[in-house]
Amino acid sequence: MRIAESNPSRKRILDCGVGGNDPKIAIFQEYGYELYGIDIDADQLKNAREFASKHGIHLNITEGDMREIPFDDEFFGFVMSYLSMVHLTKEDIAVAINEIHRVLQKGGLCYNNFLSKEDKGYDKSRANSLGEIKSNDSGFQANHSYFDDGEPDKYFQEFEIIYSAKIYNFIGNYHNTRRTCILDYIAKKR
Amino acid sequence: MRIAESNPSRKRILDCGVGGNDPKIAIFQEYGYELYGIDIDADQLKNAREFASKHGIHLNITEGDMREIPFDDEFFGFVMSYLSMVHLTKEDIAVAINEIHRVLQKGGLCYNNFLSKEDKGYDKSRANSLGEIKSNDSGFQANHSYFDDGEPDKYFQEFEIIYSAKIYNFIGNYHNTRRTCILDYIAKKR
Repeated sequence: MRIAESNPSRKRILDCGVGGNDPKIAIFQEYGYELYGIDIDADQLKNAREFASKHGIHLNITEGDMREIPFDDEFFGFVMSYLSMVHLTKEDIAVAINEIHRVLQKGGLCYNNFLSKEDKGYDKSRANSLGEIKSNDSGFQANHSYFDDGEPDKYFQEFEIIYSAKIYNFIGNYHNTRRTCILDYIAKKR
Repeated sequence: MRIAESNPSRKRILDCGVGGNDPKIAIFQEYGYELYGIDIDADQLKNAREFASKHGIHLNITEGDMREIPFDDEFFGFVMSYLSMVHLTKEDIAVAINEIHRVLQKGGLCYNNFLSKEDKGYDKSRANSLGEIKSNDSGFQANHSYFDDGEPDKYFQEFEIIYSAKIYNFIGNYHNTRRTCILDYIAKKR
């Protein structure tokens, strides 16, 4: 929030993977941002719409795929995704981050996080050589991509990485997930 | 912030070690908290006063020592300290956290952080057997206490630890410090 506040860019923010019961983007409304969200999952979008309606959040929601973001070039000052890109393959993450780059204005910021291979969900015996684990989650095929320290840096070659950190959770949930080790990035479009 | 918002306690917060150019407690004003700060260093308090005055922050500042907090029992709903307790010896940290416990109401929350031994400032050859490093910082004797994972848990026996994490910073400053590895705690007074 402090970093976002200090940035002079357009106050229009996109959440890629906004769906669910607790859309993280909501906190930006009180700071005067226009909120936009996309999600590929219609059911999850319904939950986000209900949250927004219940809490008086003005959230523009579009069904859409972050690998093909349905907005014009340089439309946003900020783009975030929160434990949603983790479901993409590593190849598709590169596609999505290039799309984020496209819809960001110059100097705009993005926040993304990734699963570390040190997360308790990582099981080397189930992962392919890239660090991806495919599972049959609630009847549909799901993917989780796990990373080594610094590995996601490669996605940000057209950005300046202004913050990157690894967070181990010992006690307490990582924002209501069961994740225990996360790689966090904030990057600025050059 | 989310955790603070969800807690029913009195909206009165104390920052132990509030001094400096960028008092972290300021962000709570817009959420309707009464802000209090103590610091043992009069010069640092002057900087915090100037910040508050310049930004219209209503911050009640008292010169004081967190090992003997100059407030009544159960006066606060929240207590925070931000990279200030790191200067106390480990024995004094126990004293300070007992003081925090005293001034918190039941169910009140505290946020504290500690330096990890994995921080780049840790130099085993300069540390005593407890993990404390004494240095001659700007002409006065300074201490920095460094911890193993989980070691600070012992300070919170009269609390419930609701969050503890270790944060490695790879790129970017840890909130304008040069720290690279921090142990973070949020605990609730039983």
